[in-house]
Amino acid sequence: MDFSLSPELTDLQARVRAFIADEIVPLERDPRCTPHGPNEALRAELIAKGRKAGLLSSHVSPEFGGLGLNHVAKAILFEEAGYSPLGPVALNIAAPDEGNMHLLEAIATPQQKERWLRPLAAGAIRSCFCMTEPPPGAGADPAMLQTIAMQDGDEYVIDGSKWFITGAEGAAVAIIMAKFADGPATMFLADMSSPGIVIERAMDSLDTCFPGGHGVVRFEGLRVPQENVLGEPGEGFRYAQVRLSPARLTHCMRWLGAARRAHDVATAHARRRHAFGKALGEHEGVGFMLADNEMDLHVTRLAIWHCAWVLDQGVLGKHESSIAKVVSSEALWRVVDRSVQVLGGQGVTHETVVARIFADMRAFRIYDGPSEVHRWSIARRILRGPKPRAESA
Amino acid sequence: MDFSLSPELTDLQARVRAFIADEIVPLERDPRCTPHGPNEALRAELIAKGRKAGLLSSHVSPEFGGLGLNHVAKAILFEEAGYSPLGPVALNIAAPDEGNMHLLEAIATPQQKERWLRPLAAGAIRSCFCMTEPPPGAGADPAMLQTIAMQDGDEYVIDGSKWFITGAEGAAVAIIMAKFADGPATMFLADMSSPGIVIERAMDSLDTCFPGGHGVVRFEGLRVPQENVLGEPGEGFRYAQVRLSPARLTHCMRWLGAARRAHDVATAHARRRHAFGKALGEHEGVGFMLADNEMDLHVTRLAIWHCAWVLDQGVLGKHESSIAKVVSSEALWRVVDRSVQVLGGQGVTHETVVARIFADMRAFRIYDGPSEVHRWSIARRILRGPKPRAESA
Amino acid sequence: MDFSLSPELTDLQARVRAFIADEIVPLERDPRCTPHGPNEALRAELIAKGRKAGLLSSHVSPEFGGLGLNHVAKAILFEEAGYSPLGPVALNIAAPDEGNMHLLEAIATPQQKERWLRPLAAGAIRSCFCMTEPPPGAGADPAMLQTIAMQDGDEYVIDGSKWFITGAEGAAVAIIMAKFADGPATMFLADMSSPGIVIERAMDSLDTCFPGGHGVVRFEGLRVPQENVLGEPGEGFRYAQVRLSPARLTHCMRWLGAARRAHDVATAHARRRHAFGKALGEHEGVGFMLADNEMDLHVTRLAIWHCAWVLDQGVLGKHESSIAKVVSSEALWRVVDRSVQVLGGQGVTHETVVARIFADMRAFRIYDGPSEVHRWSIARRILRGPKPRAESA
Amino acid sequence: MDFSLSPELTDLQARVRAFIADEIVPLERDPRCTPHGPNEALRAELIAKGRKAGLLSSHVSPEFGGLGLNHVAKAILFEEAGYSPLGPVALNIAAPDEGNMHLLEAIATPQQKERWLRPLAAGAIRSCFCMTEPPPGAGADPAMLQTIAMQDGDEYVIDGSKWFITGAEGAAVAIIMAKFADGPATMFLADMSSPGIVIERAMDSLDTCFPGGHGVVRFEGLRVPQENVLGEPGEGFRYAQVRLSPARLTHCMRWLGAARRAHDVATAHARRRHAFGKALGEHEGVGFMLADNEMDLHVTRLAIWHCAWVLDQGVLGKHESSIAKVVSSEALWRVVDRSVQVLGGQGVTHETVVARIFADMRAFRIYDGPSEVHRWSIARRILRGPKPRAESA
Repeated sequence: MDFSLSPELTDLQARVRAFIADEIVPLERDPRCTPHGPNEALRAELIAKGRKAGLLSSHVSPEFGGLGLNHVAKAILFEEAGYSPLGPVALNIAAPDEGNMHLLEAIATPQQKERWLRPLAAGAIRSCFCMTEPPPGAGADPAMLQTIAMQDGDEYVIDGSKWFITGAEGAAVAIIMAKFADGPATMFLADMSSPGIVIERAMDSLDTCFPGGHGVVRFEGLRVPQENVLGEPGEGFRYAQVRLSPARLTHCMRWLGAARRAHDVATAHARRRHAFGKALGEHEGVGFMLADNEMDLHVTRLAIWHCAWVLDQGVLGKHESSIAKVVSSEALWRVVDRSVQVLGGQGVTHETVVARIFADMRAFRIYDGPSEVHRWSIARRILRGPKPRAESA
Repeated sequence: MDFSLSPELTDLQARVRAFIADEIVPLERDPRCTPHGPNEALRAELIAKGRKAGLLSSHVSPEFGGLGLNHVAKAILFEEAGYSPLGPVALNIAAPDEGNMHLLEAIATPQQKERWLRPLAAGAIRSCFCMTEPPPGAGADPAMLQTIAMQDGDEYVIDGSKWFITGAEGAAVAIIMAKFADGPATMFLADMSSPGIVIERAMDSLDTCFPGGHGVVRFEGLRVPQENVLGEPGEGFRYAQVRLSPARLTHCMRWLGAARRAHDVATAHARRRHAFGKALGEHEGVGFMLADNEMDLHVTRLAIWHCAWVLDQGVLGKHESSIAKVVSSEALWRVVDRSVQVLGGQGVTHETVVARIFADMRAFRIYDGPSEVHRWSIARRILRGPKPRAESA
Repeated sequence: MDFSLSPELTDLQARVRAFIADEIVPLERDPRCTPHGPNEALRAELIAKGRKAGLLSSHVSPEFGGLGLNHVAKAILFEEAGYSPLGPVALNIAAPDEGNMHLLEAIATPQQKERWLRPLAAGAIRSCFCMTEPPPGAGADPAMLQTIAMQDGDEYVIDGSKWFITGAEGAAVAIIMAKFADGPATMFLADMSSPGIVIERAMDSLDTCFPGGHGVVRFEGLRVPQENVLGEPGEGFRYAQVRLSPARLTHCMRWLGAARRAHDVATAHARRRHAFGKALGEHEGVGFMLADNEMDLHVTRLAIWHCAWVLDQGVLGKHESSIAKVVSSEALWRVVDRSVQVLGGQGVTHETVVARIFADMRAFRIYDGPSEVHRWSIARRILRGPKPRAESA
Repeated sequence: MDFSLSPELTDLQARVRAFIADEIVPLERDPRCTPHGPNEALRAELIAKGRKAGLLSSHVSPEFGGLGLNHVAKAILFEEAGYSPLGPVALNIAAPDEGNMHLLEAIATPQQKERWLRPLAAGAIRSCFCMTEPPPGAGADPAMLQTIAMQDGDEYVIDGSKWFITGAEGAAVAIIMAKFADGPATMFLADMSSPGIVIERAMDSLDTCFPGGHGVVRFEGLRVPQENVLGEPGEGFRYAQVRLSPARLTHCMRWLGAARRAHDVATAHARRRHAFGKALGEHEGVGFMLADNEMDLHVTRLAIWHCAWVLDQGVLGKHESSIAKVVSSEALWRVVDRSVQVLGGQGVTHETVVARIFADMRAFRIYDGPSEVHRWSIARRILRGPKPRAESA
């Protein structure tokens, strides 16, 4: 057992930390931050900075321009990136692109990789992942998928509705989950410019960190050629797990950084601001909130590191990533909520970045499986036994 | 002991409920709802509706155009008004005007009442309450007041900075808390058009329900005549309690309605949306959240009713209103947070009104005394003994 | 709406409070308090005190020697009784006798009342309620009832196993829930001395407040005459509700008193004991616990009073009593747990009465329906709609 | 970073697990388990088993008969030992002996080690640690120490009162914290048979796992020779930290095992017991409790492992051990409380071992620094900055 980081990783951590502090934090009040995320001009500027720093798409293999980091290394780096709401965009490791690149690298054909992964990894284009559907379609329960693909010669014709499609507006390519009539789910790739893809509207949401916001997308007789099937037909749900188990964890990593930021802002305030005769933080009622933040950040980081290490052993780690997701999304939410409280009136305004992190993070307990679905999965594994717990790992 | 409502109150409750449902809810998506609250045109339209329904300024005495409700009656009516974010504006019982009218009616001179209370009660003008200051001034600790008033002949000259001044933009009149050099706090009235009042900027905040938003205000040599002193010089902090104890409670009442709305929206969703083979609400994980909402709403309502009844006995009820404030602001927050969770993705978007209630309500645990300050006050009373608890009341 | 108590009730409250303080608290360290509850000698002494004070069996009608209190009056008196672990025994209002008397008065025949209710109300005998069964029988789910009654001429023959039978050891009479083969549940009365009733063993439990402890009981060919059917055959589950809805609430009342006691002991300690330069209670970390106790006690009391008032309106109040049960059992547990924490080392020893209250109260979240079953019932009512909530009551 | 265990450690873990299951669990209902802990006969039998298994005093160096485990190895082994309330006694790693041996090995003279450490490590004798005092002495605040040592020739004369002295009854040796008049604290060693040591009484407590229970001890003119000073005079508080930082952590390790046991018992019950048409665990309300247990156990284990690793780096780790203590004592308490709830009625009786673990564990949030004191220490370090958090470790 060893909790130390290699010198290389410690160095990388320091570099990213400095990069975020020096290059990215100053852009947080840039007016190109819109209610639907940083706009394309801002995104391009951020990506240029990340590229210049040699930190772009670090989770992608060097072959496609990344740093080829393993999961543990990502845990270190992504936390640092998440320290600013703009950090993951600047390093090209924001959702959903980060997970989409991971999936493409894992299962796409060489042609598909050249066409889509390479420009994605370069930050030249963006992508979206079209899975979630409005009622009565697939929400927390993917088995309720309603989007239909029908074979027509050497093409597939796709019809259906999706929503909460993060980054749809402005994306160049979509990964689409659809099913054959009564058949299993399959993933397809499609250029967003294809006839038959309609972005009906943008959804107004609490969060403002994702470029392109969240869209409602309709497929009306969308035709995709056979070579655009992603992986094997019928394996859609399995691939969703290939994407989700690590994607879930990278969310945890980034939000850990964001919560640490909120805690740091709150701590600085608690040191500086006085009330009732002493610094706020000297009041136990406030000091205890900071201590609870410290503990929540600590155990979250450990749960993330552990899960990352498990994934690095080459297993899918569904149990560990479920645990990391629930622990992280709930503990980090408490951290940010307490940070708001410590800040008092300033906490609920945009005088600091904390209100933004607060609004951005609420969805974390919901997407990639709400806490309730993960708790249920964890419970089922416990009940099934033998024990799922990694007691020796 | 009797928990029943009089027939008159039951009838009033039904009228307000229908008014909100029929007249106000349909306006919730009106584009005149801005990030800094409903604009003046929308406010005027809402007030006109409230006036037509005969429900305007119900807490003000009939002499000034209100219904003269006691605290218990307000508990019933304000909950109904709070069911829509626009309801309190429509009934002219939104903060800070509601508390300001209460204070003016309690301590203003006849001339002051004619000049400001009457048009306020008619919804013709708005007001603001200028107490909170940026560091190192008065925040949670009012004793840190920095705004200075100096007598100059038969005028006072006021200098200082205020922020989080709700409704400052567009207000016609301000109640200003200031102190004489080393002396006690005093309240002053001033027309917002007076030379020497500068609204420096609007503060961007999570909430969007208060007309005029929240402003940063500077007093630069503001001159107010002696007759604009509100009440007695030196009694500012005492009057703040006269205003705050009931104002704290009316916040609880309105937010109770808002949380009930969130719960109703979540319940409807849990009945209708299916996942994993049954309605969401049939899953215990979701059903338990609805049950917890029900219990939190119930005990909050009881704590509010009890405190309102105590205030109706003619006492200040500082202990009871502190308890009601902490219980309400924390329990109702849990209700709204759970409602977001039940709604899943829709909960964090503006597909329903719940995300708006969520963003509006976070500040409730902070203003009018953060939970930490109230807990400390409650603790001091317990330690001082004899028991503060109203065991027989 | 009125939260005041009548002068009669205020007087009764004061009398019981003084009685408990003067007569009962001094007996708390009596060695006749055994791990299985106060023994019969101590119980007889306590009952004698209660009788002398004219406070015995206050929930029973005067016809049978009680005071005929309504539910609201019981809420006041039972809270005072619960202030000592021995108080409910002294006033003959402890579970299960209290609920059994209530049930007998509601549905027993005149002959049954004379035979069993009269001596029960006089404290001359004790009773038990035989419903819960070991697996695979009836636990939280009463429908799993396994105890069988078969008609044999003008007698019934009962066979089955029960456990967690509070007060079985030393009880004179049992109310037995059994069912006909595939038929509905029926209640029977039987003298505990009847052949065919075997008390297999006492169960060692955390609590030590119930006379007779908790027993495992077996019925082996127990023969009861037809006149011992309690109420109508086949109505057993309905009667269980008749018993449980108020019995659940009287538990809440008594434990409210116990939790108030724990809070008072903790408060006295927090005033007296010093650490780090000031009284414990002056530390916010401790003061906040006391404030949270105060709030939990307050809302619990309101929820109990409300439910009592609802029952006094003549309705069964299943929804309200479920809510009161969950709110009380969870809030009061928090109070007692915090009181232990405030007391530090003394909290986990029998230096004060708090450790005993702690051990006694843990079962409260489990018996008469665990929190989980009540949450589920509450959820079902919410989902079924129209709203179950007593908004105007 | 590496979460794997060495083959040696995995093997040791398996051996201890089997030993506890086969040799110790069967003794849990032995009547020699008294309210004041396992009696001396049972302790001797348990120690004999531990010795035979070659697992005795594993934290002590081989020189004195132990296995010389580092902190990480202890984390693995002590968790397994804690799986039974009797396990730590059998392996001679129970508090307070375990911490006392650690302290003696760290700072005692060779003569002191031969005289007391050697027989302690062999399980031949027991020891106690006399620090905590009744009011107005040292409780959570060690600076309030009242026990006085006065030099008299080449002896010290000690007078004072101590309580909560775990294991005092039956101990052969005491470590005594006392101070010179107005001077710093010093540690002394004394045979418990010395004239001048009076065990006034045993304290009845909720827990029953510590041999000898908890005693009230008085020193009346106790004379100890100079060679019985432990370490340097005036360094008592520093040595207390040397003892406490790891002793705190070994508590966490043992209780982790205990909580895992409770969870396992609850899980088995949830698999087997049915209600409302399916296994208890199939109800989300129960399954979620098991999932929360799993997560609490997981993050607790990680926090313990991390802190153990930090201590193995040779630092005192006060911050990390404070965090591990608060996280563990609160998370493991939740686990045990939920396990009781899952078990229903059986949870509050001694039908299973869970009620015993529940009663044993409540004190864990209090001793070795209550949560409130640790939160305050953590807060002070955060406020002092630079960040105390081990982000790269």
